[in-house]
Amino acid sequence: MRMVDLILKKKQGKELTRAEVNFIVEGYTSGEIPDYQMSALLMAICCKGMKKEETANLTFALINSGEQVNLSEIKGIKVDKHSTGGVGDKVSLIVIPLVASVGIPVVKMSGRGLGHTGGTIDKLEAIEGFKTNLSREEIIHNVNAYKMAIAGQSANLIPADKKIYALRDVTATIDSVPLIAASVMSKKIAAGADAIVLDVKVGSGAFMKSLTEARELAQTMVDIGKSLNRKTIAVITDMSQPLGHEVGNANEVSEALKVLQGRGPEDLTTVALTISSYMAVLGGAFKDFHKAYKELEQIINSGLVINKFKQLVEIQGGNNEVIDDPGRLPQAKYHVKVESYQEGYVGAINTEAIGVSVMLLGAGRKRKDDLIDYSAGLTMVKKIGDKVKVGDTICLIHTNLENNKESENMVRSAYIISDTEPTPMNYIHEVIE
Amino acid sequence: MRMVDLILKKKQGKELTRAEVNFIVEGYTSGEIPDYQMSALLMAICCKGMKKEETANLTFALINSGEQVNLSEIKGIKVDKHSTGGVGDKVSLIVIPLVASVGIPVVKMSGRGLGHTGGTIDKLEAIEGFKTNLSREEIIHNVNAYKMAIAGQSANLIPADKKIYALRDVTATIDSVPLIAASVMSKKIAAGADAIVLDVKVGSGAFMKSLTEARELAQTMVDIGKSLNRKTIAVITDMSQPLGHEVGNANEVSEALKVLQGRGPEDLTTVALTISSYMAVLGGAFKDFHKAYKELEQIINSGLVINKFKQLVEIQGGNNEVIDDPGRLPQAKYHVKVESYQEGYVGAINTEAIGVSVMLLGAGRKRKDDLIDYSAGLTMVKKIGDKVKVGDTICLIHTNLENNKESENMVRSAYIISDTEPTPMNYIHEVIE
Repeated sequence: MRMVDLILKKKQGKELTRAEVNFIVEGYTSGEIPDYQMSALLMAICCKGMKKEETANLTFALINSGEQVNLSEIKGIKVDKHSTGGVGDKVSLIVIPLVASVGIPVVKMSGRGLGHTGGTIDKLEAIEGFKTNLSREEIIHNVNAYKMAIAGQSANLIPADKKIYALRDVTATIDSVPLIAASVMSKKIAAGADAIVLDVKVGSGAFMKSLTEARELAQTMVDIGKSLNRKTIAVITDMSQPLGHEVGNANEVSEALKVLQGRGPEDLTTVALTISSYMAVLGGAFKDFHKAYKELEQIINSGLVINKFKQLVEIQGGNNEVIDDPGRLPQAKYHVKVESYQEGYVGAINTEAIGVSVMLLGAGRKRKDDLIDYSAGLTMVKKIGDKVKVGDTICLIHTNLENNKESENMVRSAYIISDTEPTPMNYIHEVIE
Repeated sequence: MRMVDLILKKKQGKELTRAEVNFIVEGYTSGEIPDYQMSALLMAICCKGMKKEETANLTFALINSGEQVNLSEIKGIKVDKHSTGGVGDKVSLIVIPLVASVGIPVVKMSGRGLGHTGGTIDKLEAIEGFKTNLSREEIIHNVNAYKMAIAGQSANLIPADKKIYALRDVTATIDSVPLIAASVMSKKIAAGADAIVLDVKVGSGAFMKSLTEARELAQTMVDIGKSLNRKTIAVITDMSQPLGHEVGNANEVSEALKVLQGRGPEDLTTVALTISSYMAVLGGAFKDFHKAYKELEQIINSGLVINKFKQLVEIQGGNNEVIDDPGRLPQAKYHVKVESYQEGYVGAINTEAIGVSVMLLGAGRKRKDDLIDYSAGLTMVKKIGDKVKVGDTICLIHTNLENNKESENMVRSAYIISDTEPTPMNYIHEVIE
């Protein structure tokens, strides 16, 4: 087998066999296939796509490139969730204690934020002392004892994916549905998940800007899950504006606490309950989605699940005092009001620009080794459909920077004010299972 | 400017600007842009194409990557020709003395053969002593004195093209019309041509298998020529079977001599006269193609132009005795008859397979450093449209190998015998100017 022939085959739009995909992934991981051949193949995949079976074979080959995490000592069906990334997406913070509270083992593997989207690990690290570099033994112990653990992904989990991702990053081959799907699913499966709920974001703050694209990605990931015998459900949720009102690490922890006490904003609560319900169903706690949703909604409204979150903070070494007093979370020195220059309705929000603004305030990373300011963030005072008058505060900037003129302008121009009231949007667009 | 952004731009099917194309070619030649980014871009170009102006800009950037050959000391409009490659294509051997004989300076830059197609340099080297590594001064002297020179391309002519071609070869990015066109045209222009006639081959022995593809390549090269102020004409000629009857280096020299004496096969004579006529017109020797064709046909029929070929051999150091006695060209030890197993008409010939057979006999190169057997070759006794009976010799193998069973079978199965007489084909399909 020669790599150049396989590149040609893919360039001609043909399907690679399982043996060919294995040859490519093994050869590239071992260094026998050079970067310049791999990047040509990746670009051919971007242009010509991959078939269902081919994508499953790629996922399988990625998983086999490393050591799978053996979590067989955990009792029950281990569920994980994954979000394709958005702005203000603190769903994981809510889902972990909520699903664990009905007895389903939640093993959540998370990444850090990069670019305009945040990462769950960063958000939790806004809590003093919170530790996510858990060993396999700690994960097993915590999940068996408390039904929940959240850990950063080990660098050795999928060496092929790590190496391929680094190459995709510098060769403009990131945005390919099969490559994204295989990367996500290989990590979830290698990390030991038996069942996976995927939160596929769509809209101005998501990687997938259209429902068609989101649906394709969702279907591809669900197909991979099925091919590799993992129960998989994808929920396509709205990201045409930030989820909830808070963006930034400490801000988002604080808002997640509100949801867990039944006091959260409707969009975030709905999305979190939907994802949690599917996780609970896949884990076997409920017969169907509607029963699960009703029960989990009651749990949230009871306000008691906040104690499960407190337990999560405790067992992972964090200072649990912030739960009762969110004022102890990192606070920014300055609060800058962004006022509207126009009158009308918030018609749309350029959510990616909001994400970039928050990153530039220090809440996120431009480069992998950037430091994070946990207190920096935004409060989206006005959201799509809200009426605004000239001079109304539409957004509040939390910042430690002295000069915020640029951020203020960037945030203001991300708000699109229109004369007519926009039609209300769904929080959940579709479910693919 | 960042290479990754330019790759993305091309991947999205957008047009690169002149500055961007320059940045890419300069960056890659200097080593600042790594192979893995260049190969991703090349694959994106293969998949998304390049616009007319973009392709001209690429050609210009390639030319600027090296030193152009300064042939301004040559008087007159210097014409060159280029063939996209075929089997039995000895047109250049005829064209050089013929066009020079009417006073037009022919500066022919040629390559060596690789794969199933032969190279003019190899063919001429079948003549003992023939030397093609001419210096700039020798070229200028010969062309001013005798109106003709044929030289191998200097390795330093277009360093960017050399480096890019090597990368394309191992990343399955050879077959892209803009990349092929820019590569060909940059070499012709950098080598000093004022006018260029392109022989674009189409059919089973050519890189372009369909007229649509050939037309696209021809038009793209003509457009480049026009953009860079070089008179350019492309002639799409038939390569659904070997041109003439002889394939192999000494064989082809011998057949070219026949054409120059007015005794050559009709297809080869027609193609050579057509290409020569356009060259002579572009060089200013005739007002129009038909006058040129008539005159050159008469020259050939006079048999006198053979002396111009003899002069070419002399001035480039070859043994001119072979002109009067082609029997002094390298001769193979064995001549193996390939007999037909079927009765009918030769309906088609898999010409690429014929090219590969000849290469395997030793007449061509599988790899760049393979040695050549100048005497190895085929005589295509029967061609498309010929009637054959069982046992008729359809082809004669000239070989120094003892075991020729495989070649014999390969050649036989390249002949497709059909019950019905095929419709006669044109030798010249189209002219694009």
